[in-house]
Amino acid sequence: MSQDEFAIIKRFFATMSEMTEGVVQGPGDDCAILRVPEGTELCVSTDTLIAGVHFPELAPPAMVAQRTFAANMSDLAAMGATPHSFVLAMTLPHVDEDWLGRFSKVLGDCASEYGIPLVGGNLSRGPLSLTMTVNGVVPAGQAIRRSGAKVGDEIYVSGCVGDAGAGLEMLEENPDSKCYLVDRYANPTPRIELGIALRGVATAMIDVSDGLLADLMHLLHASAVGAEIEISRVPLSADLQKRISHVSSALNAGDDYELCFTTSADRQTIEEIAQETGVALSRIGEVIKGTGLQAYDQGQPLVIDKEGYRHFQ
Amino acid sequence: MSQDEFAIIKRFFATMSEMTEGVVQGPGDDCAILRVPEGTELCVSTDTLIAGVHFPELAPPAMVAQRTFAANMSDLAAMGATPHSFVLAMTLPHVDEDWLGRFSKVLGDCASEYGIPLVGGNLSRGPLSLTMTVNGVVPAGQAIRRSGAKVGDEIYVSGCVGDAGAGLEMLEENPDSKCYLVDRYANPTPRIELGIALRGVATAMIDVSDGLLADLMHLLHASAVGAEIEISRVPLSADLQKRISHVSSALNAGDDYELCFTTSADRQTIEEIAQETGVALSRIGEVIKGTGLQAYDQGQPLVIDKEGYRHFQ
Repeated sequence: MSQDEFAIIKRFFATMSEMTEGVVQGPGDDCAILRVPEGTELCVSTDTLIAGVHFPELAPPAMVAQRTFAANMSDLAAMGATPHSFVLAMTLPHVDEDWLGRFSKVLGDCASEYGIPLVGGNLSRGPLSLTMTVNGVVPAGQAIRRSGAKVGDEIYVSGCVGDAGAGLEMLEENPDSKCYLVDRYANPTPRIELGIALRGVATAMIDVSDGLLADLMHLLHASAVGAEIEISRVPLSADLQKRISHVSSALNAGDDYELCFTTSADRQTIEEIAQETGVALSRIGEVIKGTGLQAYDQGQPLVIDKEGYRHFQ
Repeated sequence: MSQDEFAIIKRFFATMSEMTEGVVQGPGDDCAILRVPEGTELCVSTDTLIAGVHFPELAPPAMVAQRTFAANMSDLAAMGATPHSFVLAMTLPHVDEDWLGRFSKVLGDCASEYGIPLVGGNLSRGPLSLTMTVNGVVPAGQAIRRSGAKVGDEIYVSGCVGDAGAGLEMLEENPDSKCYLVDRYANPTPRIELGIALRGVATAMIDVSDGLLADLMHLLHASAVGAEIEISRVPLSADLQKRISHVSSALNAGDDYELCFTTSADRQTIEEIAQETGVALSRIGEVIKGTGLQAYDQGQPLVIDKEGYRHFQ
């Protein structure tokens, strides 16, 4: 890396590299040196976002920062992990100081809000893309995997689904769109606090990045179980209900970064966690024997085809 | 990530994800879950290699795998860290099964040789680039940083420098070139064993990725000291000596992934480490008060300008 790149990193990213208890050495050496608390395990995830693929080509830098941060933090949330540190590899077509200033300001605000310092990075020239690798910690043995769902567990999802997908559609129609749905796409909320609260409560968990149905299927597959869900229970925001004619688009929309989990805890416990964390939790179904997902609309079985779910005809 | 991408990752990368003592959960969940041994600290580094920037556009997949692996492992070596685990974010223009098969075979061989499992990854569509994030462990407090050089320390470099730079030049002249120098570019050796052997011995260390002079300057700057080096002591391979007319091109060539370190240990100790690890260690200079680097050619001071080092006229 050239001195220019060092100077850029120092100028734009130094403020988000404040030392924490877990950081012995931040950026500027060959490696960061991290302290992982005794009795904990480290959760690690990496995610790449590419302009024109994972966000619109001309997305404002704030949106790029927020979505990159949320996509990665959401993987920590899905394990019930406490944020520890992150590294960021950026590829930029050229050094646009205005863009970098706005991007790093918002990324720094996100990092500060979640108390997660930047400990290392890389800057290369190329088409705009961002690869973030995040570290989190959990008490040993308490990470919530996808594979722990048991027959009889209830299935929950946090917040509302489908908002981000609808927001993206609106941005594609008009890049200057501004509304609640667009904001849910541009600035999704990683459910870190909820993930932590679900340690010892959720038997399996995944974040909704590919779409509720697709991600629930991943969880069921990992747990070697099936599920029944009632789609009239899937939480949709009032704004989304005004826009879509059928729930199926929301079931298949990605980018929401809500958490979908299974639990054998009683409903009172889940209600208390919803109250404590301020995140609505909707019970949408139950884990059953077998494989695959059976969906019902007010008790009526649905079939899935290429256009999504539909009633039997 | 689509099911197709999961299938690709499983097919090509499963074999390099074998579980080790440090891995509680490998790829396939929202995060990997890692165990970091008590009493150790974690060293983390991330590095991106882009086609056409960090390796030739049409480089064979074996070369891409070897260089990506070595560039990242070298950062662990430079801290004296023991390899623990890595994650890999790949961006590919399209799914070329032949390319992926050959790339993953060689990457798997590298990972196996150094005993470092792949614990997570990401696959996206876009121009060819690879971002690897590596984890290593060191006994707490024993990581070798750039900042520990003291006045009076001697300066060493491992192996030979300049070979990879000359090899790259030859590949640019003729992509089918095959010789020792090309091989040092295509398949550099990360000095992991040497880095570990230098724990408690080296006072400061850096890997030679940007060029010996540039990287030594980084180390001096981090340690707030200066240095005198004798360029006739800089180790050059016989093959390189046949090709270059002056040492200055070797001093400024990158990509060798040798280690440059400072030490107050006696020469016998360093000689023993060279014997044990089978890596030649050349004493090239001494740390002095002040800032900057003064180079000598057989005792004669040199000046640096845009064309590199030259004698006073």
